[in-house]
Amino acid sequence: MERTPITHHHGAISVPSLDQSVAWWRDMLGFEVDQEIDIPTIPAKIAMMKRGALRIELFEVPGAAPLPEGRASMHDDLHTHGHKHIAFAVPDIDRIVAEMTARGADIVMHRRAPWGAFLFIRDNTGNLIEFCEQRDLFA
Amino acid sequence: MERTPITHHHGAISVPSLDQSVAWWRDMLGFEVDQEIDIPTIPAKIAMMKRGALRIELFEVPGAAPLPEGRASMHDDLHTHGHKHIAFAVPDIDRIVAEMTARGADIVMHRRAPWGAFLFIRDNTGNLIEFCEQRDLFA
Repeated sequence: MERTPITHHHGAISVPSLDQSVAWWRDMLGFEVDQEIDIPTIPAKIAMMKRGALRIELFEVPGAAPLPEGRASMHDDLHTHGHKHIAFAVPDIDRIVAEMTARGADIVMHRRAPWGAFLFIRDNTGNLIEFCEQRDLFA
Repeated sequence: MERTPITHHHGAISVPSLDQSVAWWRDMLGFEVDQEIDIPTIPAKIAMMKRGALRIELFEVPGAAPLPEGRASMHDDLHTHGHKHIAFAVPDIDRIVAEMTARGADIVMHRRAPWGAFLFIRDNTGNLIEFCEQRDLFA
């Protein structure tokens, strides 16, 4: 059976405040609100944010439970099954480390390991975001 | 300050069995193992899977806690803060619904809503995966 073409669309994050998270994704990473959606059956207010072809879908659900313990920790998070961090490719890890540091990001760690060079940060509500050096994607 | 270029790299999932999840991602969605990594400090065995430019990073951590209650439910999952589902773009939602049905995927729901056409499935361990019709990405 022929496979349907697929490409990346978005990662979804449930957040306490849409306003605060929209501001963080705009100021820290340059995403802009592309679509605002209200789904009363969840209930949720949603901001689909976009930077070029990249999208992040932010959900604000009234009364949602806080980020579970351990989810803001790079290693602890992996000790529970499920969707974990999302990762962006960058042409140069040193450049994104310098940029995120200058912008005041919550830096978790960065390293050049035998299996790749990466940076982890946390967003404004503790969610882990990784950057991986992947030069061939920018050639 | 000039922004570092970024593009999509991967979404990460912690799973009970690397072998079983590698098989699911290969058979259901056409991903192949690109890199196998062992990080004793987590400790984790990792399979970085690839389909074209798309990557999924699967982690197997000994003794990891099972998928928390509600995470396999499209709406319930959003009622706890944190990273949620990942979404792939497709040129035609009806085509991916037909393909996923034929391949025996665990279909959660599909719909043409005013804000877009989408399909949700679960992977072999209950993780939610969305497909969004986004024709312009395939023009």
